[in-house]
Amino acid sequence: MNFIDKLLTASRRNKSLLCVGLDTDPDLIPENISVFEFNREIIEATKDLVCAYKPNLGFYEAQGIEGLQALKRTVDYIPDSIPVIADAKRGDIGNTAKGYAKAIFELYKFDAITVNPYLGLDATLPFTSYPDKGVFILCRTSNPGAVDFQSLLCETDDGKRPLYEIVAIKASELNTNGNVGLVIGATYPEEMKVIRGLQPDMPFLIPGIGAQGGDLEATVRYGVDVNGEKAVINSSRQILYASRDKDFAKAARKATIEINNKINRFLTR
Amino acid sequence: MNFIDKLLTASRRNKSLLCVGLDTDPDLIPENISVFEFNREIIEATKDLVCAYKPNLGFYEAQGIEGLQALKRTVDYIPDSIPVIADAKRGDIGNTAKGYAKAIFELYKFDAITVNPYLGLDATLPFTSYPDKGVFILCRTSNPGAVDFQSLLCETDDGKRPLYEIVAIKASELNTNGNVGLVIGATYPEEMKVIRGLQPDMPFLIPGIGAQGGDLEATVRYGVDVNGEKAVINSSRQILYASRDKDFAKAARKATIEINNKINRFLTR
Repeated sequence: MNFIDKLLTASRRNKSLLCVGLDTDPDLIPENISVFEFNREIIEATKDLVCAYKPNLGFYEAQGIEGLQALKRTVDYIPDSIPVIADAKRGDIGNTAKGYAKAIFELYKFDAITVNPYLGLDATLPFTSYPDKGVFILCRTSNPGAVDFQSLLCETDDGKRPLYEIVAIKASELNTNGNVGLVIGATYPEEMKVIRGLQPDMPFLIPGIGAQGGDLEATVRYGVDVNGEKAVINSSRQILYASRDKDFAKAARKATIEINNKINRFLTR
Repeated sequence: MNFIDKLLTASRRNKSLLCVGLDTDPDLIPENISVFEFNREIIEATKDLVCAYKPNLGFYEAQGIEGLQALKRTVDYIPDSIPVIADAKRGDIGNTAKGYAKAIFELYKFDAITVNPYLGLDATLPFTSYPDKGVFILCRTSNPGAVDFQSLLCETDDGKRPLYEIVAIKASELNTNGNVGLVIGATYPEEMKVIRGLQPDMPFLIPGIGAQGGDLEATVRYGVDVNGEKAVINSSRQILYASRDKDFAKAARKATIEINNKINRFLTR
């Protein structure tokens, strides 16, 4: 099953647009439990409530070889019915991009990846050429510094547009396999609205609710497609660290249910 | 010693602006030799001829845990007097960027990294805040697709500029520790000339000579600073695969000498 079908199937089955960001920090989890064991408990506590999981590779690389082994075990542990997105933000040319694609899709067996568009379309092809894998292109990131370059007004054939809109439009050229999506931060709801207008059918991966202060109601309204789907709304810290004690998995489940219920209420409003 | 001093010291001692790109592909090296052993022989054959080494992480990640172990051993093996640049092209926000910085600078103990500017200045601070480490920001990459976004004409306070020039100018804001450089492909010599005008003192990391067809004479002319320094001209395949046989290290040394001599001739012309 290709990534988009897998995402929609999981999302419909679990009635969920919520993705749990497995950004597990060894300093923030209970003592006497490994990163993999922590992830396993979180997965067990949330797997009937989510549309996807998304580990960010930076957290695992910071833990050295041991971290990457925990990452591999985590991806292997997640049920096949739930897509797993590698938040890797890779971007390189030619053979190097092929190397990253091989690592993420073939060795770790992730279902999708996030990539950085700065190097241009040819640098993204080694990822999009895996027809069953998903590729989320960074469009409007959730951080304050997103404005530095992404908001620059650029000349195009039909007038001026901010860079992130041009990235959103150009993403169509990479979408010959129908496996391309966009990353849009929940902290920029007005921009999200415009981008949804430009790309009505693409899945959006949406970080930035919770700790980063993104607007959940606006995210749901502007993030989904016409069917109320294809928004992958990520939450990490609110769920992983709902309790810093031994009851973390139970607390994570409660937090996941609460966020998911909020999303679904906004969806039917 | 900080990165820039280490680079200049190695460059002066070896009379070299040449960096060997350790992009070791297991499919292209002789049989019965490991990636680490191959790298060790290349390092032994070239360490008196280069200003830096630059492994690209994509090649090592594609080889799984074993590849990353070979990478770690390679960085450890390189003499302390020669700086090692992680061509990682990372870019992420907040804690994740800190994780990548920790992995590259503290675990692998690289001297410098390449980073992607798309996410904005705040995403680069976790790297530049290591005062002794170097940070090369992708400005104008060497691939054909570099034009897709980097060449877009953007509005600025003093008129229109292509995006890569804005990246080059904004890099100054990150340079409070004097440890920032730029990546400029040898395949775009005219752009390099302009960027050297904008940033006369920053080191340039220059991929794209050799297999990618960059113009070496123009690279030397426009890449160096006023003292004929601070250009780090990378060559990978021309050196690593000068011979595909058992004499690869000898052939690599010969190729390194030839390229270095060419660079030094252009430098004094």
